[in-house]
Amino acid sequence: MAEALRYGAEVSDLFVTVPARSRHADLVTAAESAGVPVHVVSGEVMAELAQTVTPQGLLAVCGFVDVPLGAVTQPAPALVALLANVRDPGNAGTVLRTADAAGAQAVVFADASVDPYNGKCVRASAGSLFHLPVVAGARLGDAVAAMRAAGLRVVAADGRTGRSLDDPDVQARLDEPTAWLFGNEAWGLPPDLGALADEPVAVPIYGQAESLNLAAAAAVCLYASARAQRVHRVTGQAGT
Amino acid sequence: MAEALRYGAEVSDLFVTVPARSRHADLVTAAESAGVPVHVVSGEVMAELAQTVTPQGLLAVCGFVDVPLGAVTQPAPALVALLANVRDPGNAGTVLRTADAAGAQAVVFADASVDPYNGKCVRASAGSLFHLPVVAGARLGDAVAAMRAAGLRVVAADGRTGRSLDDPDVQARLDEPTAWLFGNEAWGLPPDLGALADEPVAVPIYGQAESLNLAAAAAVCLYASARAQRVHRVTGQAGT
Repeated sequence: MAEALRYGAEVSDLFVTVPARSRHADLVTAAESAGVPVHVVSGEVMAELAQTVTPQGLLAVCGFVDVPLGAVTQPAPALVALLANVRDPGNAGTVLRTADAAGAQAVVFADASVDPYNGKCVRASAGSLFHLPVVAGARLGDAVAAMRAAGLRVVAADGRTGRSLDDPDVQARLDEPTAWLFGNEAWGLPPDLGALADEPVAVPIYGQAESLNLAAAAAVCLYASARAQRVHRVTGQAGT
Repeated sequence: MAEALRYGAEVSDLFVTVPARSRHADLVTAAESAGVPVHVVSGEVMAELAQTVTPQGLLAVCGFVDVPLGAVTQPAPALVALLANVRDPGNAGTVLRTADAAGAQAVVFADASVDPYNGKCVRASAGSLFHLPVVAGARLGDAVAAMRAAGLRVVAADGRTGRSLDDPDVQARLDEPTAWLFGNEAWGLPPDLGALADEPVAVPIYGQAESLNLAAAAAVCLYASARAQRVHRVTGQAGT
């Protein structure tokens, strides 16, 4: 709610319980100042509205914030997360939050990925839904083509490939503009979707685990690119 | 179940539904060969036993696998995850899985952390509970002291510190034996627990997110150490 107001999402209504109104007086005042109608409701109504077991007592109705694919490629981004059929809202929201933290310029929910407005996804994103451009309902093929046209390399995170994030030639190119492609949490990227990428890269498994979970793999991949891009940029600036 | 048998956990009983018995015939045969009593149960009984909405149809009763603190410091480990008051079983299990993938030699569930045998934690660990030594119910102070005595640096993952994982002096020491200390998913590490560590380090936030979720931060930290230790080791071997 605070994020929605701060980042300019269109808030049309605010529902609040009596305890939450005292607890978040600053937010309620901010909403009122912004001309947002504030409705005081019972805990039961809030539980029903929020569709969660332990609602925060504060619920904002916001306009959609997603943008079309074309809006995230001009100017060309340096780091993007593409979600292909990521079904679990908690996973998708966590990847959105991590992409935001890593400084990605967009997250694309492609093909049969969960709706970014799913309540669990919004909560797992911890406000990040409002921080960076989100594309909803794109076809993966279109998203990949758009990224490539904007000069990004498309790298598929694929635990089954022999090509590791540690390989010197993979490391050497991490500073390039990159769209990371993440597949479904259970079955990964089927060959036809993986083939859309320029190359597959695996987060190396040093121990006995069969794989990483999606959000952990995404954190390692996105931060590897973010750090390389940042070090490169800093070095570049130092050299001028 | 497969992991429990493969990694030598003491399996005392196997419960299985009729469909799962056909689907996992190899596992059931393996259990029978190992002298484990196999009990066929209805879907209703399985749902009650497994305490989950969509059980896999196969449930093994295993002996506890956790070990005392002293068992994980001899020989001295290079990479350990210490969980301080990590309450969410999904988070704790995911960190356990990530620590395993990153090649950590132990995970310590300290202070008021969730029970590693919590069903959600076991499921989120995806078998990793059986892959590396797990210490349950340790006092954090004792765990930190044991790690330090074994020659490890104790680094607290703390998003609020100004010291970043990218800082050159932090990077320079990532290859040293390290115990990463992770705090509660909601309130992090209170000052008294943070003070137990040799230093705090933050995963840098490049975007607008206020923080990373625990499992994502742990993935970035553990893989940063794992990679540095590995590169160092490889370089060392190449130099001999």
